[in-house]
Amino acid sequence: MPHNHVTLLSMRCCSLLLRGKRSISTIVPPRRGTYAKVNDADIVYFERFLGKENVITKDIDEYNIDWMKWFKGSSSCVLLPKSADDISQILRYCFTRRLAVVPQSGNTGLVGGSIPVYDEIVLSLRKLNKHYHFEPQSGVVECDAGIVLEDLDNRLASEGYMVPLDLGAKGSCFIGGNISTAAGGLRMIRFGSLHNHVLGLQVVLPDDKGTIVKFGSGLKKDNTNLHMHHLFIGAEGQLGVVTRIWMNVVPRLPSTQVAMLGVSSFEKCREIVRLSRSRLGEVLSALELIDANSMQCVLEDNSFHPVLRSNPAFYILVETIGSDERHDKEKVAKFLDEAMERGLLVDGVQALSREEASYMWRVRETVPVALARSGYVFKHDVCLPLQHFYTLTEVVKHRLGLEGLEARVFTFGHIGDGNSHLNIVTKGYSPDVADELYPFIYDWVVINGGSISAEHGIGQLKRPFMAFGKGHEIEIAKRLKEVFDPRRILSPYKML
Amino acid sequence: MPHNHVTLLSMRCCSLLLRGKRSISTIVPPRRGTYAKVNDADIVYFERFLGKENVITKDIDEYNIDWMKWFKGSSSCVLLPKSADDISQILRYCFTRRLAVVPQSGNTGLVGGSIPVYDEIVLSLRKLNKHYHFEPQSGVVECDAGIVLEDLDNRLASEGYMVPLDLGAKGSCFIGGNISTAAGGLRMIRFGSLHNHVLGLQVVLPDDKGTIVKFGSGLKKDNTNLHMHHLFIGAEGQLGVVTRIWMNVVPRLPSTQVAMLGVSSFEKCREIVRLSRSRLGEVLSALELIDANSMQCVLEDNSFHPVLRSNPAFYILVETIGSDERHDKEKVAKFLDEAMERGLLVDGVQALSREEASYMWRVRETVPVALARSGYVFKHDVCLPLQHFYTLTEVVKHRLGLEGLEARVFTFGHIGDGNSHLNIVTKGYSPDVADELYPFIYDWVVINGGSISAEHGIGQLKRPFMAFGKGHEIEIAKRLKEVFDPRRILSPYKML
Repeated sequence: MPHNHVTLLSMRCCSLLLRGKRSISTIVPPRRGTYAKVNDADIVYFERFLGKENVITKDIDEYNIDWMKWFKGSSSCVLLPKSADDISQILRYCFTRRLAVVPQSGNTGLVGGSIPVYDEIVLSLRKLNKHYHFEPQSGVVECDAGIVLEDLDNRLASEGYMVPLDLGAKGSCFIGGNISTAAGGLRMIRFGSLHNHVLGLQVVLPDDKGTIVKFGSGLKKDNTNLHMHHLFIGAEGQLGVVTRIWMNVVPRLPSTQVAMLGVSSFEKCREIVRLSRSRLGEVLSALELIDANSMQCVLEDNSFHPVLRSNPAFYILVETIGSDERHDKEKVAKFLDEAMERGLLVDGVQALSREEASYMWRVRETVPVALARSGYVFKHDVCLPLQHFYTLTEVVKHRLGLEGLEARVFTFGHIGDGNSHLNIVTKGYSPDVADELYPFIYDWVVINGGSISAEHGIGQLKRPFMAFGKGHEIEIAKRLKEVFDPRRILSPYKML
Repeated sequence: MPHNHVTLLSMRCCSLLLRGKRSISTIVPPRRGTYAKVNDADIVYFERFLGKENVITKDIDEYNIDWMKWFKGSSSCVLLPKSADDISQILRYCFTRRLAVVPQSGNTGLVGGSIPVYDEIVLSLRKLNKHYHFEPQSGVVECDAGIVLEDLDNRLASEGYMVPLDLGAKGSCFIGGNISTAAGGLRMIRFGSLHNHVLGLQVVLPDDKGTIVKFGSGLKKDNTNLHMHHLFIGAEGQLGVVTRIWMNVVPRLPSTQVAMLGVSSFEKCREIVRLSRSRLGEVLSALELIDANSMQCVLEDNSFHPVLRSNPAFYILVETIGSDERHDKEKVAKFLDEAMERGLLVDGVQALSREEASYMWRVRETVPVALARSGYVFKHDVCLPLQHFYTLTEVVKHRLGLEGLEARVFTFGHIGDGNSHLNIVTKGYSPDVADELYPFIYDWVVINGGSISAEHGIGQLKRPFMAFGKGHEIEIAKRLKEVFDPRRILSPYKML
């Protein structure tokens, strides 16, 4: 298959590319493209139809820098359109003038996807957040792309529904950005990916007309054309600007049950994944892994106390969401009994109150915060077949140990989806550790059938590695980019 | 929005196109393209690497005619490749020779999508059915495209899993064809569309190399490129030939509950859709509508007896699938009580045994068969916002009544997804009825926010209408077609 040849070649190229560099943070982006530079006449033009208050040219660090402060662009112009028509006019103009543009939603990404690399115009979607319409009988919502995920969820709550997507950044990320990055989050095991929910998208294209086009529809079934709206899910703003969304949402069910399990080996964790799927069937909503190191790091903060006394090698947080509390409590108890009988558990606690449940979730959500507090974090977001999920952690520990490097290795993540957040923490930034990690980790992941980016995307961070595990399909993606963005003005220097 | 203008224009063009024609079955396809014709040298070439037994040139009606006997092509050559490499070699050769090819799976479609229009080579996938690999801990199956849906489901049953797709043709359709047509079926309300399950696809492209490429992966999360495999779901073989599938499957849960409800008005049916979503929450697996006319038609066969005594205007079949029989029985009983108390039901029966449940399903599945027995059927498959779902039926009844035409109107379908199978039955084929129905029905559906093809696709049948409700996105789809199929040799005269 030509596929494999291309992959291997690309991996070799990337390895060569990286040799001699000290770390991924020093990787130089491609040279600035032959785009025009924003001048006074451009600003006057934008101000004329957007209004002066919606064209920002001063104090724009919050748009030039990501929230982790890993990436910094040098844009001098931020536009705040309020409608698809505004965006159409902007893109038409930028197409003609050959001005580069980077769409930006809530700026909560972890790979620098929505941050300018050079002086691209920032097209912020934060004022595109007025339109909201919900049809409770069918459960389909139609809304603007700039609505904050949590706000959307709160509006739906009053109708007895919820967004089938939940993630740490929900208070500041926008639904349009979630779609453009194919956000995964905590409950994908239950509700599926955004491909399961997004029914249609209104998109503005960066072409000579600033074409406004609707892909898909607001219907649950529509087989009348290519299903093109799915191309925009995870496209990281490479093809067009998503402005409006039609999405299937789900009933907000009244019962949430949470349990924390202590497990002695990763092989048993895998068995628990299987058992929980079958025994908790329809109510299972999350399966989160925390290894002993990660838990230890959380417990270093004295405001936390251990949930389990057994001090196991692995903790698994199990959550169910269902329509009947008594049924769900019974199911979870029965599942715990069976797992215990089968010798899969060292220990297990079922939350008996809402407070206990929130506490267990708080432990899980504190892991990345606790790691960040304890030093410099080399964060990872990879997806692996379950049999290799934790082997990667062990391989990395061994590798760093052989070199005698002072680095601690932590793993947590969405084990139900095979999504590992492997983190390596050093006192300060360590170029030697970086050299050991890259491209080693990505090589290893690809060789073992995994993906180098499970839910965080490519952006700027993983651009040098994006060919890992990919072959001819990258060439095809580039040709699709040409169809939608013929002058390549949208979000340059990144995925495509 | 340019979108709307294009739509209206297209609708007008189609109306003009159809005026003067007697029925959709007489619509003339586009003239034969400038493709080469299969000659003896081609046959010799194919026989050399496929083997003589896999190149069929005689008695090929079963490949030239669809199972409903609505469409007939005049192909003189059927190829039966056994691997992606075989298909690669075939497409490379056909590209060079400029021979047109139509991929064919189980040939169970209803719109003539897999039947040649002129003399295209039929590329049958029926021998591409050997590879099967299942990973029970993650629930991901990898298999060849030519495996029969029911066979795949049976293999998974032995591992405690099932395919999250069920439809009438499961005994003969192939999983590859299901994906290429974005098959919907009976349980989409529970499991979502195929976009929710398909993780990756191996595809052979009709280009100069017969490129074999893998889009997506076998992983539940992979954000390392455009999510291009979704383009092939519902592409009706326009872009490439799907040869292998990586798919997420679901645990086979032990409890299935079925109930039949009698409802007096469509407005109450809509309320039941909402109530069942919220009260049956996680276990709801099907919501099927049968109107009184359709039920009457089933009952004309004496081997059936009425499930409900109340003779209501509408019947709704509710199904749940769950992990605990006692819990599910309780939920269904409670839901029925509440619906009754709220005055939404005239009558309702919960199946007390597997036999009663199967009988209810048999009634639902017999509807299309009973209609076909009673005369010539004008079948439809449209998706509508719920408030317009049944209005269409009433509008059509009224319209045919005004003209004094002898036609009976029936509606059944997947009400949970807004998918109506509106059928009009006449004694024999009636051109006058056809004139009243087309393009009237499609106009009405589009004006009321619906889709003219919910789950059956475009194929040959709906090609003249495919611009209904569509705008600029059809142009974009055509440009995507060019990227994948530069010589347009794959499945011509159809969707793109």
